[in-house]
Amino acid sequence: MKAQHRLWLEEDGHVFGDGMANLLKSIDELGSISKAATSLNISYRKAWGMIKKSESRLGIKLLNTQTGGENGGGAFLTPKGRDLVKKYFNFKREVDLAIDHAFSKYFS
Amino acid sequence: MKAQHRLWLEEDGHVFGDGMANLLKSIDELGSISKAATSLNISYRKAWGMIKKSESRLGIKLLNTQTGGENGGGAFLTPKGRDLVKKYFNFKREVDLAIDHAFSKYFS
Repeated sequence: MKAQHRLWLEEDGHVFGDGMANLLKSIDELGSISKAATSLNISYRKAWGMIKKSESRLGIKLLNTQTGGENGGGAFLTPKGRDLVKKYFNFKREVDLAIDHAFSKYFS
Repeated sequence: MKAQHRLWLEEDGHVFGDGMANLLKSIDELGSISKAATSLNISYRKAWGMIKKSESRLGIKLLNTQTGGENGGGAFLTPKGRDLVKKYFNFKREVDLAIDHAFSKYFS
């Protein structure tokens, strides 16, 4: 027997879960929405829509974008965006550990 | 913002979650599969099927049934069935608390 779970954050019906967190993490690593979208097998349009919706529903600006220029532009997490992603993954890891611990306590 | 989650146990693809746990708890309280099914708004047939499938997949006899007799028969949890239900709800409560705690830590 094993424990399974799904975990997400919700703000007024809007879900912030693994999908958004991984998208933002990937943008932070790759410096580009389109590269991040490709790496996650979703369209640029979908990635863009997810970010805009999340920003609007959470009331937080998550990304700054820069167009053109020497490096062809790019996307960068805002400090608040980076903070949210960091907290989300820390929260998730802590919950995973707590579930493993409780499962061992009751079912091992 | 708030945290949401779903939690369940799985054995070889078989899900033991709130549905089964509540059904067994209700049978334990009411002493009857049909009364428990009615209280949960499911059919006797569905309740019976859920129990038989769960017993078979978990390899645990969860219920003893008694037919006829002075009190018209009834259903009773086996010690292993009662133990599983108790552990499941304790496990669930502990996970709920851990998630609340972690959420406060990161998002309050």
